Amino acid sequence: MSESAPVSNKPVHAPMAQFPVEGGELIVGGQPLSRLAARVGQTPFYAYDRGLLRQRVAQLRAALPAAIKLHYAMKANPMPALVGLMAGLVDGIDVASGGELKVALDAGADPAEISFAGPAKRDSELRQSVAAGVLVNVESARELPVLAEASQALGLPARVALRVNPDYELKGSGMKMGGGPKQFGIDAEALGPVLAEVGRLGLAFEGFHLFAGSQNLKAESICEAQLKSYELALRLAEQAPAPLKFLNLGGGFGIPYFPGEAPLELAPIGANLQALVERAARDLPQASLVIELGRYLVGEAGVYVARVLDRKISRGQVYLLTDGGLHHHLSASGNFGQVIRKNYPAMLSQNRGETRRESASVVGPLCTPLDLLADKMELTAAEPGDLAVIFQSGAYGASASPQDFLGHARVVEVLL
Amino acid sequence: MSESAPVSNKPVHAPMAQFPVEGGELIVGGQPLSRLAARVGQTPFYAYDRGLLRQRVAQLRAALPAAIKLHYAMKANPMPALVGLMAGLVDGIDVASGGELKVALDAGADPAEISFAGPAKRDSELRQSVAAGVLVNVESARELPVLAEASQALGLPARVALRVNPDYELKGSGMKMGGGPKQFGIDAEALGPVLAEVGRLGLAFEGFHLFAGSQNLKAESICEAQLKSYELALRLAEQAPAPLKFLNLGGGFGIPYFPGEAPLELAPIGANLQALVERAARDLPQASLVIELGRYLVGEAGVYVARVLDRKISRGQVYLLTDGGLHHHLSASGNFGQVIRKNYPAMLSQNRGETRRESASVVGPLCTPLDLLADKMELTAAEPGDLAVIFQSGAYGASASPQDFLGHARVVEVLL
Repeated sequence: MSESAPVSNKPVHAPMAQFPVEGGELIVGGQPLSRLAARVGQTPFYAYDRGLLRQRVAQLRAALPAAIKLHYAMKANPMPALVGLMAGLVDGIDVASGGELKVALDAGADPAEISFAGPAKRDSELRQSVAAGVLVNVESARELPVLAEASQALGLPARVALRVNPDYELKGSGMKMGGGPKQFGIDAEALGPVLAEVGRLGLAFEGFHLFAGSQNLKAESICEAQLKSYELALRLAEQAPAPLKFLNLGGGFGIPYFPGEAPLELAPIGANLQALVERAARDLPQASLVIELGRYLVGEAGVYVARVLDRKISRGQVYLLTDGGLHHHLSASGNFGQVIRKNYPAMLSQNRGETRRESASVVGPLCTPLDLLADKMELTAAEPGDLAVIFQSGAYGASASPQDFLGHARVVEVLL
Repeated sequence: MSESAPVSNKPVHAPMAQFPVEGGELIVGGQPLSRLAARVGQTPFYAYDRGLLRQRVAQLRAALPAAIKLHYAMKANPMPALVGLMAGLVDGIDVASGGELKVALDAGADPAEISFAGPAKRDSELRQSVAAGVLVNVESARELPVLAEASQALGLPARVALRVNPDYELKGSGMKMGGGPKQFGIDAEALGPVLAEVGRLGLAFEGFHLFAGSQNLKAESICEAQLKSYELALRLAEQAPAPLKFLNLGGGFGIPYFPGEAPLELAPIGANLQALVERAARDLPQASLVIELGRYLVGEAGVYVARVLDRKISRGQVYLLTDGGLHHHLSASGNFGQVIRKNYPAMLSQNRGETRRESASVVGPLCTPLDLLADKMELTAAEPGDLAVIFQSGAYGASASPQDFLGHARVVEVLL
């Protein structure tokens, strides 16, 4: 007869083993969280760990063929210091606006390895791109004459790739970004005349960008999308005005956020890309194959930390009222693309020797029931002063949140 | 035999009659939208109409008893110029943070008529409130000793009301903020000892704050919640350390956003409040009855305006790509509390004499399919340069949106 606790079949969060825990306290960047909070000088804050960012890039380099170029999509986390670190680790930076382009250039990224994608680029952003010498992922025929004019006016080549809206989608993605009608890219079947126009206008054609979806945890689906993207690009290359130098196969690599989700397996993706690299050596000998990742590179390296201000019991339910909330971390509150709200992985960090556990809801200071960081989670029993930690917060955190909401102070970000 | 178009039973948006349309062009603050965009100097922008704000307050004054105090909950729209206007129109301002308190005071609001609610107030915010002389809506017993200490240190009274988590909820609300376990306020049945503590600490007790829910379009539900709030307050007043001077019955008045929704009827609410005012004259002779409104006061007086940069057809569907999007208007994108995304009322404003209509999706510049302002709506056929208008955008717009997302420029707000 076993005396162990009854086993629940309820799905649980994947273990957040990237950060050690010592005596109830989380260690981030080698420091106990209470000391880190003191050195930051305020709560709430985001902390990103350089060691984990380097480790993630190294894991990818080990798993993927050496010939694959790794790009960082900085929309996931545009903190300037972090972009500076990433610029030294990856092969290129993908920007999504003129504002991001400035940050990437300030960070020392090589313009030759920056690409700019976005479905509604302003004319001024297109001119900025030509002046900076970066690659523009063209999403609409409308961009072409603007680029040609900028190229003439500046006496510089307009480097372009065409973003393709494929005729398939990435199965099982958090976000579908290809297949069917879309605002992104140019429909694959309508690309012929656009390629001809690129040639006629004398733009510096470099290749294609295909991005079928994001936040996918199924290696098989990612491999299938990569293969289809490669084959579509191969067909499209026949109509291109110049040989392909650049083929961005997109990203889509997900990280586990919710109970029951498991980390993505890299090995099958590495094998799949190896096969594509070998085919490309024959089919497209001048082309670099690019994988563009945002969330997968930075998401697991960051935590959001808020301080418990109050512990309140309302009709039997424990509420931990913190100084942080959805105004800093909209995604964790479940209000950014999620249909059904689920808890991000979380913990309660303290160095009081507390070991009791209780079910508690972690909420913020806003006057709205949406301001919920953790809903009835099992956490270490908290007291005011303890720190609430939301994991998987390195991507789509501070920059993707309504920081002005209700007039609270902005969050601070630190890179450790 | 009728020759008229077939009548669809599909629900449609309530007409947005508050802004005139002349020759296909929207008139805001007396100006054609194209001229207004030129005077603002950029798109996208929010425009709020002083005339409509005054009109709304006047409608409320006419429909509600004169004895009812009208408060503006500035969380709905904290633009300083607008708060300044509202401070002159209403009887008090409700703030939700130290940051909002500063804006209200700068706007010239009378501290005697400012109240501060929020479930996780920082100690520093409680001290600011005592120093400013405003009323604190206490949401947790934890706030009491902090207020007492501030009162002693500053030699000023700590004016307090207690926010009550009622034992009922506002039926049919967009947001439920009372009933069951909640992070807001103090459970009604647990209020006795807290009231005793208020007396023991010598705080300046003024009354109660009850807020059962928001964005309700059913007058009957609002009346029921007001009646229940009144009766609960009456019972609680028996345990209070001083006679009630202040009874905030909450708000909850909704505005129509989505197809099939009709404007709230004010007449039954006016009648209901008249009965409560008469009862209060006997039961609570020193008390002012307060209605606290945010969205209802400002929501319909504002529009969000973005410029069409591109018109793209993908697989038969028309996309209007604009320079505005969810980074400025998260609510209209459907990513702020909505379970199922629905379109806000919208129009396409132009002065080209265009009269054709077409089904189009209005999207923004972000690299995410969430960046959708209107999904397959029937709009005037657009060309680049035309202006896309989202109505019902005076509340929870700019300040409730992730403006840093993807590095685009911040939105501009103008008060006309």
